[in-house]
Amino acid sequence: MIDQSTICAISTSPGVGAIAVIRLSGADAIAVADKVFKSGKSGKKLADQPANTVHFGKIQSDEEMIDEVIVAVFKAPHSFTGEDIVEISCHGSVYIQQKILELLLKNGARLAFPGEFTQRAFLNGKMDLSQAEAVADVIASSNAAAHKLAMNQMRGGFSREINELRDQLLHFTAMVELELDFAEEEVEFANRTQLRQLTEKIEKLLARLVNSFQLGNAIKNGIPVAIVGETNVGKSTLLNALLNEEKAIVSDIHGTTRDVIEDVVNLHGTAFRFFDTAGIRDTKDVIETLGIERTYSKLEQAAIVLLVTDLQNPYPVVAERINDIRKRLNEEQKLIIVGNKLDSAIHDTMVQMEAIDLNDHEKLVFIAAKQKTNLNQLVDLLLSAVNLHIADSQDVIVSNVRHYEILRNAHNAILRVLEGIDSGITNDFLAQDIRECLHYLGEITGEITNHEVLGHIFKNFCIGK
Amino acid sequence: MIDQSTICAISTSPGVGAIAVIRLSGADAIAVADKVFKSGKSGKKLADQPANTVHFGKIQSDEEMIDEVIVAVFKAPHSFTGEDIVEISCHGSVYIQQKILELLLKNGARLAFPGEFTQRAFLNGKMDLSQAEAVADVIASSNAAAHKLAMNQMRGGFSREINELRDQLLHFTAMVELELDFAEEEVEFANRTQLRQLTEKIEKLLARLVNSFQLGNAIKNGIPVAIVGETNVGKSTLLNALLNEEKAIVSDIHGTTRDVIEDVVNLHGTAFRFFDTAGIRDTKDVIETLGIERTYSKLEQAAIVLLVTDLQNPYPVVAERINDIRKRLNEEQKLIIVGNKLDSAIHDTMVQMEAIDLNDHEKLVFIAAKQKTNLNQLVDLLLSAVNLHIADSQDVIVSNVRHYEILRNAHNAILRVLEGIDSGITNDFLAQDIRECLHYLGEITGEITNHEVLGHIFKNFCIGK
Repeated sequence: MIDQSTICAISTSPGVGAIAVIRLSGADAIAVADKVFKSGKSGKKLADQPANTVHFGKIQSDEEMIDEVIVAVFKAPHSFTGEDIVEISCHGSVYIQQKILELLLKNGARLAFPGEFTQRAFLNGKMDLSQAEAVADVIASSNAAAHKLAMNQMRGGFSREINELRDQLLHFTAMVELELDFAEEEVEFANRTQLRQLTEKIEKLLARLVNSFQLGNAIKNGIPVAIVGETNVGKSTLLNALLNEEKAIVSDIHGTTRDVIEDVVNLHGTAFRFFDTAGIRDTKDVIETLGIERTYSKLEQAAIVLLVTDLQNPYPVVAERINDIRKRLNEEQKLIIVGNKLDSAIHDTMVQMEAIDLNDHEKLVFIAAKQKTNLNQLVDLLLSAVNLHIADSQDVIVSNVRHYEILRNAHNAILRVLEGIDSGITNDFLAQDIRECLHYLGEITGEITNHEVLGHIFKNFCIGK
Repeated sequence: MIDQSTICAISTSPGVGAIAVIRLSGADAIAVADKVFKSGKSGKKLADQPANTVHFGKIQSDEEMIDEVIVAVFKAPHSFTGEDIVEISCHGSVYIQQKILELLLKNGARLAFPGEFTQRAFLNGKMDLSQAEAVADVIASSNAAAHKLAMNQMRGGFSREINELRDQLLHFTAMVELELDFAEEEVEFANRTQLRQLTEKIEKLLARLVNSFQLGNAIKNGIPVAIVGETNVGKSTLLNALLNEEKAIVSDIHGTTRDVIEDVVNLHGTAFRFFDTAGIRDTKDVIETLGIERTYSKLEQAAIVLLVTDLQNPYPVVAERINDIRKRLNEEQKLIIVGNKLDSAIHDTMVQMEAIDLNDHEKLVFIAAKQKTNLNQLVDLLLSAVNLHIADSQDVIVSNVRHYEILRNAHNAILRVLEGIDSGITNDFLAQDIRECLHYLGEITGEITNHEVLGHIFKNFCIGK
């Protein structure tokens, strides 16, 4: 049973603005609005107005005139929630917003729970669960990459991928279960080789989605970049220079939230999570050795490694460090070798560094962090490293932890199917694993869900959405 | 010449919200919106849609899908600014808001100056200048009293008052100037006694408006309340108790701004500006005497004086202080005598205090500030003291500094007229003073204005209004 009560909430950002919007949704949304709204011109009730129209008038509480407002009327099922919706645009004083809200509550609406408008949109079939979840991500996304990811998911790109997977699995299960019905007759409707191929294909798809989470999560929370190098090569200076760069870039973005973690930098629409590390050097000091070990272990978490070297050093010193780091990186990680202190570089070191044979995942750039020379080139390299990453991982990228966990479960189930085929287990076990996999995919789109899961998903939404 | 360019701005509170509204106004508002908006269903251009309708669709920049939005279309002259207006309701991420704004700028709109929407409403004759000014006050008002004042002014209550004054002055000037035309014939169209009566009436009206500013300003910025009394009677405890009261009251108001001056307390919709003072006592210490003098001088600024006394003291001590303060107050000021420490009071002191003969502007209450006993009674007395004040000053209350200054000038001009009549100056001097007075009133409603004045008025508005 869908809750039919009429809910209301302030939907715009809290605080004072030129205007604010208060939203009502539910079976009685228009009736409740009619109790507090007096049309300015026609005197008509909102109930008598056509859908998708706006009306000027005033909100009055007994004798007190609260505000002059614009009211928009939407009618079920053609609205965001699929219910009747009234949106009241009022002057954006906190006092007025609060007063109108109080008035609506007094006249039969109740305050919406966090995300309840979106939850109703899901329950009324306006979007599936993964799309509903993306609404929160769209609102929270603060850079181009995260926005694109969330927007694609909200518009159903991810759902399409999941539904294709489900179709393939259903085809698979149909064949297996058909054999099950004729178990005593030992027929084989599905060629075992073909079955295995289909299973492998599904396994690959699931594996790709599971693996895309690392990148999706990175896009959402910032691409992890490790800044490594010997002591005193200018790592911190570089980090500060990049942070300054950020301040210049974000300062013209109105109202950008300030409570970012110190080291997340938004460079031309992509968030990078830089972590500075202890300088690497050969030492017998036990404590310092521990610190250096930690640097190496941090390398593993990085999608991109910025290896900072000092161009004032002779080439062999630089080369040794480069080789050391190269050995420690895996194929997925991008390496940017940064020759710092360009202003006082040893010429020969530069020449020899330029001669290094770089592979596809490696780049070289000379900068002077202190003077901010060539910093733009470094930023471009960072951005192209990410684009390479995104291009590598094709269309749909998973960024939601819930989806990731479900997809891992689905992937494990399909791996058991594959194992089962190879070890020749009976069809009923196969069918059970496939059904489990189908069940998981249904949890993502919300075909299979329960109150608790919904509560958990929507509790992190803001009120008014 | 009115600027016809199309302006745009984010009109909702800055920051992340469920939704945000971006507003376009100007001759090309609809054309600019049509360049970035693709209708979801009909595919129709907004230019082909009727006024006062809303439309679902998407905002697209080249290949990038920015957001799914609801767009409202208003057509000149039936809009807030009197021009074509398009309001775009988007998902409230800062990224999306910024992107849509950038897109509109790229397609021919320019960023609105602070208050430019309201300024256009004034220039297009949708409201007079004092109403336009009230829009900012409506948005800024954070309590019921300030809201009522601003709303009354925005709805034209103040303009009506000014226009009535102008009508009376015009009647007056017509008579005087008629006499001027027939100066050589020594006719007297206007009976001098009647003229004087009319001038007096106008003077009284202007004086009332000028005087109302003190209250208007107090309502806007907090009613000034002095807390006075001897040392150690519990003045600071009382102030803290009242501040706590406030926290309890404002905590359920969503998004209330936090950067209030420490001692402004919002009690049931009215702001009070409490100032604690140095304790009064007889002393030979020169420095302390200076502090006490300052306390007395602060008394003058207070609309309400809270005289805190200690019920543990014998009555004569209390009575002496009450008489001392009573002597120092003027007729306009309200006095609330607070008997504190009710929990350990001397019974006789209470009995004798209750026997004090209070006038209309005086009240008595017994409390225990520390235990918060009877604090509600004290709050009620504060509120009724203000209501008495507001009731005293009839309808329209001036709260705008610009209006106050102009009204003072107008009042001085009319005083000169009165003086002139009594001293028998010639009609041309009389007429000049009257015309000056008319000029000032025209400055309030904006019939007489200039670019500089407008710039000054609207620069303190927020962008988007």
